[in-house]
Amino acid sequence: MKAIRAVNQLNNSLIAEAGVILADVHAAAARENRRMPLSLASEGSATIGGLISTNAGGVHVMRYGMMRDQVLGLEVVLPDGRILNALDTLRKNNTGYDLKQLFIGAEGTLGIITAAALKLAPAVGSKVVAVVALATAERALTLLHRLRAETESLSAFELMNRQSIAMALRNVPGLRDPLAAPAPYAVLLEFEQGKAPGLSESVEALLAAALADEIIDDAAIAKSTAQEHAFWKVRESLSAGHRTGEPQANHDISVPVSEVPAFLHAAEAEAQSLCPGARVVAFGHMGDGNIHLTIMAPEGGMEQGKAFPGEAIKHHMHTLAARMRGSISAEHGIGVSRRDEMTWFKDPVALDLMRTVKAALDPHGVMNPRALLPDARLSPGPVD
Amino acid sequence: MKAIRAVNQLNNSLIAEAGVILADVHAAAARENRRMPLSLASEGSATIGGLISTNAGGVHVMRYGMMRDQVLGLEVVLPDGRILNALDTLRKNNTGYDLKQLFIGAEGTLGIITAAALKLAPAVGSKVVAVVALATAERALTLLHRLRAETESLSAFELMNRQSIAMALRNVPGLRDPLAAPAPYAVLLEFEQGKAPGLSESVEALLAAALADEIIDDAAIAKSTAQEHAFWKVRESLSAGHRTGEPQANHDISVPVSEVPAFLHAAEAEAQSLCPGARVVAFGHMGDGNIHLTIMAPEGGMEQGKAFPGEAIKHHMHTLAARMRGSISAEHGIGVSRRDEMTWFKDPVALDLMRTVKAALDPHGVMNPRALLPDARLSPGPVD
Repeated sequence: MKAIRAVNQLNNSLIAEAGVILADVHAAAARENRRMPLSLASEGSATIGGLISTNAGGVHVMRYGMMRDQVLGLEVVLPDGRILNALDTLRKNNTGYDLKQLFIGAEGTLGIITAAALKLAPAVGSKVVAVVALATAERALTLLHRLRAETESLSAFELMNRQSIAMALRNVPGLRDPLAAPAPYAVLLEFEQGKAPGLSESVEALLAAALADEIIDDAAIAKSTAQEHAFWKVRESLSAGHRTGEPQANHDISVPVSEVPAFLHAAEAEAQSLCPGARVVAFGHMGDGNIHLTIMAPEGGMEQGKAFPGEAIKHHMHTLAARMRGSISAEHGIGVSRRDEMTWFKDPVALDLMRTVKAALDPHGVMNPRALLPDARLSPGPVD
Repeated sequence: MKAIRAVNQLNNSLIAEAGVILADVHAAAARENRRMPLSLASEGSATIGGLISTNAGGVHVMRYGMMRDQVLGLEVVLPDGRILNALDTLRKNNTGYDLKQLFIGAEGTLGIITAAALKLAPAVGSKVVAVVALATAERALTLLHRLRAETESLSAFELMNRQSIAMALRNVPGLRDPLAAPAPYAVLLEFEQGKAPGLSESVEALLAAALADEIIDDAAIAKSTAQEHAFWKVRESLSAGHRTGEPQANHDISVPVSEVPAFLHAAEAEAQSLCPGARVVAFGHMGDGNIHLTIMAPEGGMEQGKAFPGEAIKHHMHTLAARMRGSISAEHGIGVSRRDEMTWFKDPVALDLMRTVKAALDPHGVMNPRALLPDARLSPGPVD
């Protein structure tokens, strides 16, 4: 269950058993001058089976897609014990329903993935990492829009609000702010290019123009691999930075990319209204419209006698996302903890169709029975 | 059913009703300096609903994916008359099964797609079209491999064997061979780049190196838009070129990209063995491992008293593809005409799972009942 069975350089494909960790796939691809472009901080522990079952995201989705987009084929043990052998490495195969899609992101509720055929791409030639400072989320959207129009090399656009960076700098040892002064927002940018030359020069020109046009207020470009790692380390430490044990409500929201600034403003207002003085930690994959939002009790704790309204905050934030036709779980999935919220935030027809699929494939409910699907007896409620 | 409901430039998305034709989506995207990167010759008649239901391919799949990869969300009328409203324009949404995947490529057997949200990308900045001559299919694979390693701009790699071009030149008026002399194989190459400069120079250097290394024997680079169209016109006329009314067996096969040369050699040998003197017309999207293969009766017709062994040829060619873990329908789908072959060439567990899904979603079998799924009473046979 832990072997890489094959790497086919000429077909840009790799077959791995489900227990292989992401770092080992990256290493096997690199040995053939290839890459599997899914990148996340947990590559040393995340397995291919888990990444597919949860349709993992990460920091390069805006350019390369989610785990779903990396999968060419799957081998799956079905609930009745039969094996679906669909370990194809084909780019095109229009012979009926694309069954593998059912199991990707199904959180193990329809079968057990035992092996996967994954797409590879040529290795990266050059890379530039930068952090820029911005006064508003609107300007971040303007920057994203402009960079996308001007270059095909943008591979990460990671928004970080001031609070998220401040808490990481305070609580995670060994971090250094890449920017000279705190700004309301920072964005970690990554650009990747094949063998074509000139990436550094073009990124420098793009950022100089954004400075001149007052879209950004400051820019730091990493000048060494060590600096690139240091910049990324800040981004990757944001989650740990606010895991302080203090009361908090965590969210993994997505909205249309164009709605991210409006969402951030509305979320701040809702948070202050529900919990005056609340600290709003917001960061995430803005290129995908995906914001990891954490609302924390005020510095020093709640007022005497008041409890942190975590459940109310979650419900309001999810309602806000739903009103913008967003998602209450962009990349983290549902599991058990968000399961019952599906009753509120998922279209009832979609929920019913999911139950139909589950009942058809797993009539005895043996596969991960507590996850994903809420009890049908819960009353659905419309978003208010 | 024929309106484009919305174009969101900042979210790079477009919502179109199912009856909208592809050309109108391209035009609406272009007005916002965007594109929806699915390209096929029938854009003036193909509808969005049809393209999604058949998971259409086309000439840019190697870079941008099939129709499935362009879909963000769907609105579907289910077999029981309910409407699945999943017209999301989100990049990320891990809230349960990705139901839209069920309907993409299902050929209308699970529901009727009424509208779709599609991904857009920035408009193309520069483009280079070229045709190169090669002595063997192996060299075409070498060229593909090298170009992919050297540039990210390769967007089409269309293989054409000598017979396919010869028949088009003979039977389609107004065509001109871009190459000075017929070669065993030609490849139409297209390179696309955003706003970065220097595409022409880099393509010229790549092709000069391929000539120097004797991978290719000749190269013609289009010097005007008119020439680009003329080059593409040859490629787009290949199908019409061999629709002569003569006996023939047509195939739409895919194999792993690395297996294309071996497949072409084996197909030629099988064809000659089954029908001595047969003409082999082979062309297609080599970048995806997808070959449109047509075996035609010998020039001048079959020998007196001999029938063209069309069915035997099809079965042998499909068996050959299956042995290479390929597909008997890369992009054209199954419909009615290839339906019963599914019994032979699809994994029985996959076929059974498809029937389970069909029965669960459409228990009364009202949706396109004759298409896609073979009668369960047909005996499955292993590939010999």
